Amino acid sequence: MNMKLDHIGIAVKSIEDRLHIWEDALGLALISVEEIKDQNVKVAKLDICGPHIELLEPTSEESAVFKFIEKKGEGLHHLCFQVTDIEKALANMKSHNVRLIDEVPRIGASGEKIAFIHPKDMGGVLIELCQE
Amino acid sequence: MNMKLDHIGIAVKSIEDRLHIWEDALGLALISVEEIKDQNVKVAKLDICGPHIELLEPTSEESAVFKFIEKKGEGLHHLCFQVTDIEKALANMKSHNVRLIDEVPRIGASGEKIAFIHPKDMGGVLIELCQE
Repeated sequence: MNMKLDHIGIAVKSIEDRLHIWEDALGLALISVEEIKDQNVKVAKLDICGPHIELLEPTSEESAVFKFIEKKGEGLHHLCFQVTDIEKALANMKSHNVRLIDEVPRIGASGEKIAFIHPKDMGGVLIELCQE
Repeated sequence: MNMKLDHIGIAVKSIEDRLHIWEDALGLALISVEEIKDQNVKVAKLDICGPHIELLEPTSEESAVFKFIEKKGEGLHHLCFQVTDIEKALANMKSHNVRLIDEVPRIGASGEKIAFIHPKDMGGVLIELCQE
């Protein structure tokens, strides 16, 4: 299957407080900062030559990222893979008894299809699949 | 600064138990499995088109990965970036008051220079730098 890492999501309480470390101390270039209203997060994208890093700041207590930080603290949150056929990838996961958070893909912020896989069967790693 | 994501480390209790999910359910190709004796870990490398994923299994209770799993459970463990000048990158981190685990680079399993950055100042993310 064609699987390419798209990005790594990192949960932060405040992009304003954390961004300078990633930009200045680590030397990554900022691509963009935008708010994704329906997911209640603000996202800062950073270039890492290939995939990118996303700093994810909750903008509401309803945000999944808010709940993650409450439970586990700030830190590595999820991996996102680009796939060429998201329905096929989900069917394959299911055939291996991996629980899906999204049984059917939903539409992401840029119009792409996305779906999350339950971390329970992935050894504690939250995985997102996306198809442009 | 030239910063390229090299790999993402994922802590697992047992590569044997977890590998099939990453290979079969997610469809990633296995590159290699090897033991790194002086770090007390067994490492399974998986291809993700660009950087790679490393499943890290502790082989001793002395392993940092063993302690991580005891404290936080299995899951995302660290990000590793390739740099062209590791001493310069460490000096830059230090000038931004980021605490270093390795003040001076040490030699990794394949002879490359490596150094770890303290997660405390990176919003809970453990960062490794490597220079081939």
